Amino acid sequence: MRLATVRTAEGTSAARLDGDHFNLLGFDDVGSLLASGTPAAGAEVIGVVPSEEAILAPVVPRPGKIICLGLNYRAHILESGRELPQYPTLFAKFSEALIGPTDDIELPTAQVSEQVDWEAELVVVVGQTVRHADAHEAQAAIAGYTIMNDVTVRDWQRRTLEWLQGKTFEGTTPLGPVLVTSDELGDASGLQLSCRVNGEVMQEATTSDLLFTPVDIITYASTILTLRPGDIIATGTPGGVGFARSPQVFLRAGDVVETAIEGIGTMRNMCSAREGGK
Amino acid sequence: MRLATVRTAEGTSAARLDGDHFNLLGFDDVGSLLASGTPAAGAEVIGVVPSEEAILAPVVPRPGKIICLGLNYRAHILESGRELPQYPTLFAKFSEALIGPTDDIELPTAQVSEQVDWEAELVVVVGQTVRHADAHEAQAAIAGYTIMNDVTVRDWQRRTLEWLQGKTFEGTTPLGPVLVTSDELGDASGLQLSCRVNGEVMQEATTSDLLFTPVDIITYASTILTLRPGDIIATGTPGGVGFARSPQVFLRAGDVVETAIEGIGTMRNMCSAREGGK
Repeated sequence: MRLATVRTAEGTSAARLDGDHFNLLGFDDVGSLLASGTPAAGAEVIGVVPSEEAILAPVVPRPGKIICLGLNYRAHILESGRELPQYPTLFAKFSEALIGPTDDIELPTAQVSEQVDWEAELVVVVGQTVRHADAHEAQAAIAGYTIMNDVTVRDWQRRTLEWLQGKTFEGTTPLGPVLVTSDELGDASGLQLSCRVNGEVMQEATTSDLLFTPVDIITYASTILTLRPGDIIATGTPGGVGFARSPQVFLRAGDVVETAIEGIGTMRNMCSAREGGK
Repeated sequence: MRLATVRTAEGTSAARLDGDHFNLLGFDDVGSLLASGTPAAGAEVIGVVPSEEAILAPVVPRPGKIICLGLNYRAHILESGRELPQYPTLFAKFSEALIGPTDDIELPTAQVSEQVDWEAELVVVVGQTVRHADAHEAQAAIAGYTIMNDVTVRDWQRRTLEWLQGKTFEGTTPLGPVLVTSDELGDASGLQLSCRVNGEVMQEATTSDLLFTPVDIITYASTILTLRPGDIIATGTPGGVGFARSPQVFLRAGDVVETAIEGIGTMRNMCSAREGGK
């Protein structure tokens, strides 16, 4: 099953993709649908939008928590000369960063930064409230999977030891296009993930290379705090980011970023310059 | 004016302290009150609780964002042999960490960690939506000030480069007791801040020693993203934490932590061990 958050005249609506159309369900977005505990398969349909006309919001527009991982693709860690870490590196993003799967990526003004970079990632969407999960409970807590481009302002990420400020610029981070439920994708291993910029492949990897799997991460994070329906966990990015290239490459106005995972879909976002001096 | 979130039979209610009682206002908590834009001075009173009987929740129980600063007390930075940083260090906490000003601090089991530490901090509560604020707009966006003890699980904080996982353990972080509006506290400089553990003074400083002031931080953070009513910003802690003592001291079950700021109040939280193996 494929779920999305569709923009409507009144705001947004949770929706289920059925063939060539989205059936709108009686919830503001996929986060509210998951929080309600209503099975999406049986939810009341209150409207229909042909899928080719639908404009999608971030699949969960306002997650209670956005937990992100760094350093989680084995090959990328080893090629950087690092040892495989014992613990996952966790950091946060705030929901102001999120945009829909076809929205423009908002570049800061040149005075603020010219080092905006891409990071294609598999995202786990939490579907059940869980704390101190074992592996079985962790698997059961996964509603499904989606895609994020964890767009990062590199110079701000590195201004201090803590990455948060470079990770949470407003309007930078596409999330979507759809949530694919775990009954279709299983543990989401073995999926090809890629990021293209202006058609050129910049990142390409398989999710089988994840050091900490979705189940590992939920087990670990739920030791710390309760995970709730609609929380999202971005599982980290493989090699090929612009910052690590020689010469370095960063996003410019007009660039088109395509972020794709096999079995989930593709997001296509253009970069647009922020207007004005502020 | 002093605002609080009072626990009631139905949940919680925003409240205004008037003399020896709290007047309950028609909002679930101080966050909702601020988001509504309703002036607290004129809000409809729907109930009364004598202040000595009131049980307080975190003053903002579910902030949209919790932004925390590291390394922000000048004397403490210099005594650690560091140079004054050019940029504020920002990290996040999730709202699951928050507890009320008299609630127990939930210690993890000994298998998870025995390194729980205190960090008394002045907190800025945002009252207006603001982006790209100048100093004047930043000052106007401050609803007022409260207190946090940014309780930290040190070994988890240091497991990786990113502090988040040690900063956001569930039920560890008292926030309150009240929000004191900025018309009473001005820029919140010159206030004595302290943390006592079992009556012994562990931290003592003045908020005049803050390197980045509340206005500086709002200006900086609002370059990155929009700040909204109910967002909270914890401004960092001075020297005297348990981790940096010789020998090190960490919190144990039964310990009592008192976190106080002149002109705002005192929070008193006992540490309690988590029951059971999970």
